[in-house]
Amino acid sequence: MRVLGIDPGLTRCGVGVVEGSIGRPLSLVDVGVVRTDAQLPIAQRLCLIEAGLEEWLDATRPDAVAVERVFSQHNVKTVMGTAQASGIALLVAARRGLPVALHTPSEVKASVTGSGRADKAQVGAMVTRLLRLPQMPRPADAADALALAICHIWRGGASNRLEAAVSAHTAASRATHGTGARP
Amino acid sequence: MRVLGIDPGLTRCGVGVVEGSIGRPLSLVDVGVVRTDAQLPIAQRLCLIEAGLEEWLDATRPDAVAVERVFSQHNVKTVMGTAQASGIALLVAARRGLPVALHTPSEVKASVTGSGRADKAQVGAMVTRLLRLPQMPRPADAADALALAICHIWRGGASNRLEAAVSAHTAASRATHGTGARP
Repeated sequence: MRVLGIDPGLTRCGVGVVEGSIGRPLSLVDVGVVRTDAQLPIAQRLCLIEAGLEEWLDATRPDAVAVERVFSQHNVKTVMGTAQASGIALLVAARRGLPVALHTPSEVKASVTGSGRADKAQVGAMVTRLLRLPQMPRPADAADALALAICHIWRGGASNRLEAAVSAHTAASRATHGTGARP
Repeated sequence: MRVLGIDPGLTRCGVGVVEGSIGRPLSLVDVGVVRTDAQLPIAQRLCLIEAGLEEWLDATRPDAVAVERVFSQHNVKTVMGTAQASGIALLVAARRGLPVALHTPSEVKASVTGSGRADKAQVGAMVTRLLRLPQMPRPADAADALALAICHIWRGGASNRLEAAVSAHTAASRATHGTGARP
């Protein structure tokens, strides 16, 4: 199972692709960041995030996408932009009929470190070890995206069967009716 | 100038199209709501909002799009979904190279009623009068979308020249490089 993890953000969207299955070693496919210039208007930044994520989907062809769930209790100044970026991440995945899952930061931390309250350094260290990388992925958003993908693989996507079925149905019916064609 | 106003929301996105210019009578082009079923997964709901807004853009061909600015102080339970829906609204407009503006609820209220603290009924009453409609548009999200479009026309889109230039540039460069092609 190949999973694309996305840690959404307007300035930096962490993206990490991991292949593996429960009880087998994990392997890194690719990791990086989709960046947008903070000087640009928000609408244009969302377009660039859409294009950037589409390129990652084209290049890595994941079986599923895992996105970090955003909470409104987070940093109030950036939370709206993060929520908008997460909306784009969910959209590009579902539009392809890919199963999409949302995992909370504490679910991700608990999956890779055993503790839902682990700090960023601990998450980064475990991601590096689990994927047998020569060094910790930078920036932290990239490491977080890999942790999301690992979390999704280890949770077995079990909670997402319904989403998968619905997404497949949507993709099929959209193809049939031809709605929402891109200009 | 023909403006599409969008009052974003996951369950109901109000959409209203108004034609007019400063100092001239305004006219209603169309008004309605893009709805999504609250039982569906969030990713699929965002796909349906994208498809619904694309249909409105295709059918009404606006010159500009005005979206209500979402604040995190709003209802915490729904604000994340509203922010995600607003991200989709900004995306579909900017992707076509249309100028996009964000207006706050108080800017909109002040534009159509003279008071930034007017209530929904007052906004609805003024929209009905300004567009010479036989009755108040329902639901309130639809009336709010019309108020947004009127606000945008009366503010003259002056603050949005930079956004327009940047959007046009983006559309041109995206067409050239062919990035973000829809699957």
